[in-house]
Amino acid sequence: MTIKTDFGAEALTLPHPYLLFLGDVKHKGYAKTAFGLCDWAGEKCVGEYICEGGEITTGLPRMAPTEAAAKGAKSVIVGVANSGGIIPSTWVASLVEGLEAGLDIVSGMHVRLGDIPELAETARRLGRQLVDVRTPPANIPIGNGQKRSGKRLLTVGTDCALGKKYTAIALSRAFAARGVQVDFRATGQTGIMIAGGGMPMDAIVSDFEAGAAELLSPDAAPDHWDVIEGQGAILHPAYAAVSLGLLHGSQPDIFVVCHEPGRENVIGMPGFKLPEIEEIVELTLKLGRRTNPAIRCGGFSFNTSEMGEVEAAEFMTKEGERLGLPVADPMRGGEALERLVDSCLQ
Amino acid sequence: MTIKTDFGAEALTLPHPYLLFLGDVKHKGYAKTAFGLCDWAGEKCVGEYICEGGEITTGLPRMAPTEAAAKGAKSVIVGVANSGGIIPSTWVASLVEGLEAGLDIVSGMHVRLGDIPELAETARRLGRQLVDVRTPPANIPIGNGQKRSGKRLLTVGTDCALGKKYTAIALSRAFAARGVQVDFRATGQTGIMIAGGGMPMDAIVSDFEAGAAELLSPDAAPDHWDVIEGQGAILHPAYAAVSLGLLHGSQPDIFVVCHEPGRENVIGMPGFKLPEIEEIVELTLKLGRRTNPAIRCGGFSFNTSEMGEVEAAEFMTKEGERLGLPVADPMRGGEALERLVDSCLQ
Repeated sequence: MTIKTDFGAEALTLPHPYLLFLGDVKHKGYAKTAFGLCDWAGEKCVGEYICEGGEITTGLPRMAPTEAAAKGAKSVIVGVANSGGIIPSTWVASLVEGLEAGLDIVSGMHVRLGDIPELAETARRLGRQLVDVRTPPANIPIGNGQKRSGKRLLTVGTDCALGKKYTAIALSRAFAARGVQVDFRATGQTGIMIAGGGMPMDAIVSDFEAGAAELLSPDAAPDHWDVIEGQGAILHPAYAAVSLGLLHGSQPDIFVVCHEPGRENVIGMPGFKLPEIEEIVELTLKLGRRTNPAIRCGGFSFNTSEMGEVEAAEFMTKEGERLGLPVADPMRGGEALERLVDSCLQ
Repeated sequence: MTIKTDFGAEALTLPHPYLLFLGDVKHKGYAKTAFGLCDWAGEKCVGEYICEGGEITTGLPRMAPTEAAAKGAKSVIVGVANSGGIIPSTWVASLVEGLEAGLDIVSGMHVRLGDIPELAETARRLGRQLVDVRTPPANIPIGNGQKRSGKRLLTVGTDCALGKKYTAIALSRAFAARGVQVDFRATGQTGIMIAGGGMPMDAIVSDFEAGAAELLSPDAAPDHWDVIEGQGAILHPAYAAVSLGLLHGSQPDIFVVCHEPGRENVIGMPGFKLPEIEEIVELTLKLGRRTNPAIRCGGFSFNTSEMGEVEAAEFMTKEGERLGLPVADPMRGGEALERLVDSCLQ
């Protein structure tokens, strides 16, 4: 698998190894950037760093910036994806400490690092870089909906933070293992940090959302696959705009629905029940047909991290029979994942 | 009907009367801003102004900026909504001529007037204002999906540029005529120019799209109506992200589907057939229920400007029977419009 950025935007080059910053978050779901980097770019991470009140650990050794710098770290990378993409004032002193230890700061938050006066001033004084992964490339066009060559797979979900990125990376690797030409296309801050390039779909002005997705997976060889990281969820009360623009612009041939069994409510949205998987399939087909009449569901990716191995396998088999298509947990791999890959490539 | 901006954004105050600038456009659909201002804020418009190659007229007297200034105009207002919201270099000399005649420039394009060096420099030199209507307010929150008090109506469409704004304004006026407390809520540049305030939905970063719509129609008295101007179309290959964020954030009780009989293809999108009206109703219900389970279709607004009066009336009656809800052309008014209002308010 190659991971590249060939759509004309400036490719980001992030200084690494990283020290993963977890702020003061108390919910694993908000630290998904840090967990993503550990799981998929672990060789780039020397340790983790929290500030007062933080309760989450990635399992990496906890260390101060000076220690990380001594171990070769080049940047503090903000490993948090909170609601609104803000950097609370309570984190700023910790980030300044990182700059003073000789590290750059890399962030995928909506707020720009350079817009925080203390960080801007310290970085300027010390000659450090402030790298905003979420800043979109310039000159994104309005979508045109025209069919592009090559094949595309998009991961979608019943909610946020349940495995759309992991699934896309795992499917990319599984495709590559079969000798298929494939690129993983990153659409969020963590994916872009892992891939070293991509399109920050949630930071795009909404009029250009589909156009940005079109840029992300350009014309390719007829048997080449782009495996595109999904964002949000088509029935998410806050983020569905991102999901729909990405769906239309990606014009996927195949989509895989990502789901976490047992999750009953939309994360961070009191009163919103998780939609049924079948509802997501139906809506994705109805909406996705607009730019790719041949769109079909390739199967399902379940995040079964809360289940034992046997329980997970039985549950996925039963759900696969009920839904009529393969169900796999890409983190577990195995034959279930191979069946899902078969279904996507058939 | 009162038109106000009470959602915390800075209210825009636009210098008027206006001289309507039509650039060099050759398609009426791209001059919808100018036509909207003529129809709904005609008392604010002294004339129209085109540059070389322009083929569209609003019917207002054509004049140069010096003549308009002599007749009391205070600004040149860009009356064009082209693809991408750009100001081509071929228009700049005409706009500079406006500044030199003593007029400010008002624009709803994506590009900022101040980012065009010749305009910025001339405005600075002459002490003129460059007013960008499409610049969103700061500090828009992520949507929360929570139910707000008061009632809401959203206009949706089978395409762009077929009457969603006109319908919203006409329904606001018809509601007010029945003594209903109502606010027209503008979401696009023309609507904002007419209303003097609103939320430029297509200029919002997509992660905040639903949140911006939530701000636009805040809590209100239980029997108060916000009538919200729709944007794009849920099956538009470029703009559906805007439409879905606006739908979720508006949490409408009622939607009215706007359509232009006879239009076969999506404007500016070769190869895209117009969706069926029923498909838009079905999708709007399925998606809109997410934030308002009581959402229902109030009826249909047809743009019958290409038909004779008798033909239009017969066609709308037949379509109303087929679709099972009232059909009206708000520009024609009459009993059909009253039946549509009945259906919305019942």
